[in-house]
Amino acid sequence: MAPQSSQSQPPPPSPEDKTGAIDAPLHAVGFVIEEVTPQKVCGHLRVTERSCQPFKVLHGGVSALVSEALASIGAHLASGLQRVAGIHLSINHMKRAELGDLIYGEAVPISVGKTIQVWEVRLSKIDPSNSDIKSLVSSARVTLLCNMPVPQHAKDAGEALKKYAKL
Amino acid sequence: MAPQSSQSQPPPPSPEDKTGAIDAPLHAVGFVIEEVTPQKVCGHLRVTERSCQPFKVLHGGVSALVSEALASIGAHLASGLQRVAGIHLSINHMKRAELGDLIYGEAVPISVGKTIQVWEVRLSKIDPSNSDIKSLVSSARVTLLCNMPVPQHAKDAGEALKKYAKL
Amino acid sequence: MAPQSSQSQPPPPSPEDKTGAIDAPLHAVGFVIEEVTPQKVCGHLRVTERSCQPFKVLHGGVSALVSEALASIGAHLASGLQRVAGIHLSINHMKRAELGDLIYGEAVPISVGKTIQVWEVRLSKIDPSNSDIKSLVSSARVTLLCNMPVPQHAKDAGEALKKYAKL
Amino acid sequence: MAPQSSQSQPPPPSPEDKTGAIDAPLHAVGFVIEEVTPQKVCGHLRVTERSCQPFKVLHGGVSALVSEALASIGAHLASGLQRVAGIHLSINHMKRAELGDLIYGEAVPISVGKTIQVWEVRLSKIDPSNSDIKSLVSSARVTLLCNMPVPQHAKDAGEALKKYAKL
Repeated sequence: MAPQSSQSQPPPPSPEDKTGAIDAPLHAVGFVIEEVTPQKVCGHLRVTERSCQPFKVLHGGVSALVSEALASIGAHLASGLQRVAGIHLSINHMKRAELGDLIYGEAVPISVGKTIQVWEVRLSKIDPSNSDIKSLVSSARVTLLCNMPVPQHAKDAGEALKKYAKL
Repeated sequence: MAPQSSQSQPPPPSPEDKTGAIDAPLHAVGFVIEEVTPQKVCGHLRVTERSCQPFKVLHGGVSALVSEALASIGAHLASGLQRVAGIHLSINHMKRAELGDLIYGEAVPISVGKTIQVWEVRLSKIDPSNSDIKSLVSSARVTLLCNMPVPQHAKDAGEALKKYAKL
Repeated sequence: MAPQSSQSQPPPPSPEDKTGAIDAPLHAVGFVIEEVTPQKVCGHLRVTERSCQPFKVLHGGVSALVSEALASIGAHLASGLQRVAGIHLSINHMKRAELGDLIYGEAVPISVGKTIQVWEVRLSKIDPSNSDIKSLVSSARVTLLCNMPVPQHAKDAGEALKKYAKL
Repeated sequence: MAPQSSQSQPPPPSPEDKTGAIDAPLHAVGFVIEEVTPQKVCGHLRVTERSCQPFKVLHGGVSALVSEALASIGAHLASGLQRVAGIHLSINHMKRAELGDLIYGEAVPISVGKTIQVWEVRLSKIDPSNSDIKSLVSSARVTLLCNMPVPQHAKDAGEALKKYAKL
């Protein structure tokens, strides 16, 4: 994170830095993006105080924010970096996740039309003793309006995404 | 906000402090609770960089987080401070809000049953020249499971709420 | 159904006939449209065996069908009889309605944009002893894509609506 | 439908009859149940005039009714024939189906808890030239409240289901 050699080359950005550059609120709740392609956007979140509600379990609103964010990033990419806007989010909260739990989040497209895209986002709790075992914490559907022109003042909105995505 | 007199009495908590004590993620996105009763939970949010998506408009995930939070607080109170858990959130994003806009958020109960509560949450943009004029930014429905026993380790989950709510 | 006169003029269509002409599945479940304007679509349904699930209460799928139908009719009208297509329906079932109950259904627009419309549809049970007392059976949100050209083979899709609507 | 013998034994019920016995409104829109187990409920629907909206495409409300019905049947079975009640339905309409199209519908559980079950229901259009090729028409999530006692007057609500299900 800090420069370590005498050379002038800066270190590569960390996954946390990339997440912050791509989506500020997603970064703020502690989510870290791992992979970004038009077919899949995924990453993880460690449940901390800042992502919990008063009963010390993952805040349903944080799950919703993560779901909307991952789907929007994916749809933005799948639309060829045109402007997209989420018009509806529906999320079922199924299982609680507690302080310290590690959450894996993954968004995949269900339908990619010219005007409307629908993405599914699943958040799962990873069993600490075996990361292959996951139990579903929430499952969301995000509906997005696509094919919109990018406004002049937001011409660089897709820059960070283009830089970090595998296209 | 800072101590101003030589007396030992601490200043009363600010609305921001109260929000932080009641719901950490809600506080983190910049929302400030104004009023909490079993019939209404409301407050406001100034749209800043930390609540925006890359196109510099209010992040739909932030609207979802605020909606889930306000409804949960209200349902928690309306259930007599029993444990509640959001099981579904559905939100329509209708109008964009831009950097600097002031958002008013209000949650009201639609149905308060013994087992299930349904709350409606509307976020509106306030016209800077006339605060009576509001345009609907999003409208959400939150479905919550109520009548659940409070677990031992979360016995004080409702304390901040009890302290600040008008009951 | 109407008194027959000796003249050759046919009797005016009954509300049931109008409903059938406007929306066949809505008619099939027993709903009767009373009023159609771009600001409100309403009518009633008597709960019978054909609209019940096995527990002899109003079938949630019937409430969903009625909600989608009323919102679509309203959006069709509000778009100036362009083609509209429902893209999302979200419905909360709140109170049961039993065999013989009379249900009042009303759809109103929440947001009428050029591309997207959102309608709210509420179904309520009417108290037989006082028709002013209604209790909410379900509450739905329907999201529709508008501004679509009417295909050649469906040029007369809006005819029945135009004929019976108050415009 | 079945070969008639000279014996007095009545022919076995057709799939249409079974559907009618299990769920009247589902039968009324033309859906035919093929398989019923606690892990899957599926069947098909031929799009006819009675399941269309005025633009001669499958009525979104019919898709919603079918989704709610299949999920309820599955949850009823998965709960051990206790009373279940749908509390929320969320459906995305993705592709249009036209008059004459054959629709395959399938419901599977996403989460089967003691209090809440969530089912996913997908309706797909079958390509007439190759029944292995299906395109997604709609995708729904149904949230149901389970563990409820069966009321005295509805003691036989599960009889038809028990008779026809593979348990």
